[in-house]
Amino acid sequence: MSATTKTTELERILAGDARAVARAISKVEDNVEGAAGLMKSIFPHTGRATVVGVTGSPGAGKSSLVDKLAMLYRSRGERVGIVCVDPSSPFSGGAILGDRIRMQTLGLDPGVFIRSMATRGHLGGLARASVDAVSILDAAGFEKIIVETVGVGQDEVEIVKAADVSVVVLVPGMGDDVQAIKAGIMEISDVFVINKADRDGVLRTEKELESLLTLAVRPDGWEPPIVKTVATESKGIDELAAAVERYRDFQREGRVSLERRASIARWRILELLRERLLARAVGGEGADAQLDALAHEVAEKRRDPYSAVDEFMDRSD
Amino acid sequence: MSATTKTTELERILAGDARAVARAISKVEDNVEGAAGLMKSIFPHTGRATVVGVTGSPGAGKSSLVDKLAMLYRSRGERVGIVCVDPSSPFSGGAILGDRIRMQTLGLDPGVFIRSMATRGHLGGLARASVDAVSILDAAGFEKIIVETVGVGQDEVEIVKAADVSVVVLVPGMGDDVQAIKAGIMEISDVFVINKADRDGVLRTEKELESLLTLAVRPDGWEPPIVKTVATESKGIDELAAAVERYRDFQREGRVSLERRASIARWRILELLRERLLARAVGGEGADAQLDALAHEVAEKRRDPYSAVDEFMDRSD
Repeated sequence: MSATTKTTELERILAGDARAVARAISKVEDNVEGAAGLMKSIFPHTGRATVVGVTGSPGAGKSSLVDKLAMLYRSRGERVGIVCVDPSSPFSGGAILGDRIRMQTLGLDPGVFIRSMATRGHLGGLARASVDAVSILDAAGFEKIIVETVGVGQDEVEIVKAADVSVVVLVPGMGDDVQAIKAGIMEISDVFVINKADRDGVLRTEKELESLLTLAVRPDGWEPPIVKTVATESKGIDELAAAVERYRDFQREGRVSLERRASIARWRILELLRERLLARAVGGEGADAQLDALAHEVAEKRRDPYSAVDEFMDRSD
Repeated sequence: MSATTKTTELERILAGDARAVARAISKVEDNVEGAAGLMKSIFPHTGRATVVGVTGSPGAGKSSLVDKLAMLYRSRGERVGIVCVDPSSPFSGGAILGDRIRMQTLGLDPGVFIRSMATRGHLGGLARASVDAVSILDAAGFEKIIVETVGVGQDEVEIVKAADVSVVVLVPGMGDDVQAIKAGIMEISDVFVINKADRDGVLRTEKELESLLTLAVRPDGWEPPIVKTVATESKGIDELAAAVERYRDFQREGRVSLERRASIARWRILELLRERLLARAVGGEGADAQLDALAHEVAEKRRDPYSAVDEFMDRSD
């Protein structure tokens, strides 16, 4: 690249340059100087991709399902970004454990970009960083972006809610916790998948899910379909892609209100605000040393956590 | 109760009055006026209970396991508190779905206190409220407090880390996600349980776990035991209780450093600080209306989330 054709960071991202995309995601993940500016410049170029959020309990086979869905999109000539969010993992970057298998099938394809997002530690920001990564991939021209979460905690639910289409993956015979899961994710799911549908108990799970669905009428009138898959054998993937597309069409017809998007935007603003406020509070001179001292006082039971926060806030005010 | 023997809220909690305990937990959950003062007065009375944190993926049979462990403790004459944390659930209070079954076996026993903690919405605070609930039960004289999480997200990991003894529950044959889970929870687990140990694949799961454990040497020298259980048939529960007790003894011998407790304290302070800062920022006059307006601007793509936060913070400064 000569000096006269020097391209900016933004231009390289918009051109879909994988290395520029990777660097940009690292930037927002580490929340370094310039990350906010970059995101501001990226935002106007977002909104073209279809973002598919995939959640469900560990063991449901989400990774295989996501891989097969990605391969289907690839076979149709679409570029696919995969963001894998694992709040319980201390690892970050390109290749955490499960990714090694994934990389063998998808990693060599230049039309696929895979990124794992792990915990950001006590200061938080994983949800914000994950959604920012999606925006970067969107601006970089990936037609389909799949956001996969490993867990089913609060952050993951919010991340999946922020997608255009939310897919919740269940498996037959989950036993005594299945009711609890369903209660929480019922409202966020646009498409249900029963994976490992060659197992015993699939009919029962389907019936239970159907009866729960009849109880939960959505304000937008959408009736979430139930798709049965066996991801490891590539069964049902076409049907899943079709269900995702149907909901996307439903959205495009304008039946999904501005209120849903405003609610996602509000969440993004609050996440960012929370992170900024905490960073500012603990970033001051001597703040970290004071935090440590207070933590030790609490650990030794010489002080309670509430008084410790009073003390800390008095200082930073 | 006559006027001369009028007892304070704190006295009733310390006496183990179930209604006072329930009210206190609601108070910290809703973070109402007086909640901070109450927690400050409670803190000096904590530290006597053994707090057992139980996590693992949905479907691992955690609820059954927790119930059976609670029954065992009851049979030994100990009072048991159970705090069930479900960040994906919009429900809170006494009786969410899964609890109905639980209540039939344990709920009528006055020596057992069961409480579900659900999401606190966008403003967060679930982890803080859950840990506060444990402190309240501790002060109320419950000898054993079991904190069970439904999911395995960041919050849940932190909540379980804050317990005296952390138990991670796996099941045989979890498939492709098992590696990912193990990576994240490896460092937080003091005791491993392989539940549903009458299923196929138990030996393989055990071997995988053992080989992972040989790679992860803990700084305190503790070697986390693996206990096999079939909770629904009450198998292995004695062994689980013994493993919990062994780690508790190990801690009592002083081999668990002040640093672990200081790290937990630091996390509690940060959680509380985060919540306070956000509440203060969005609690001002007109703040909510401004947030709504900004969220709509972002939803309509007239503004990016980062600029929206700049705008909001300028205002509140």
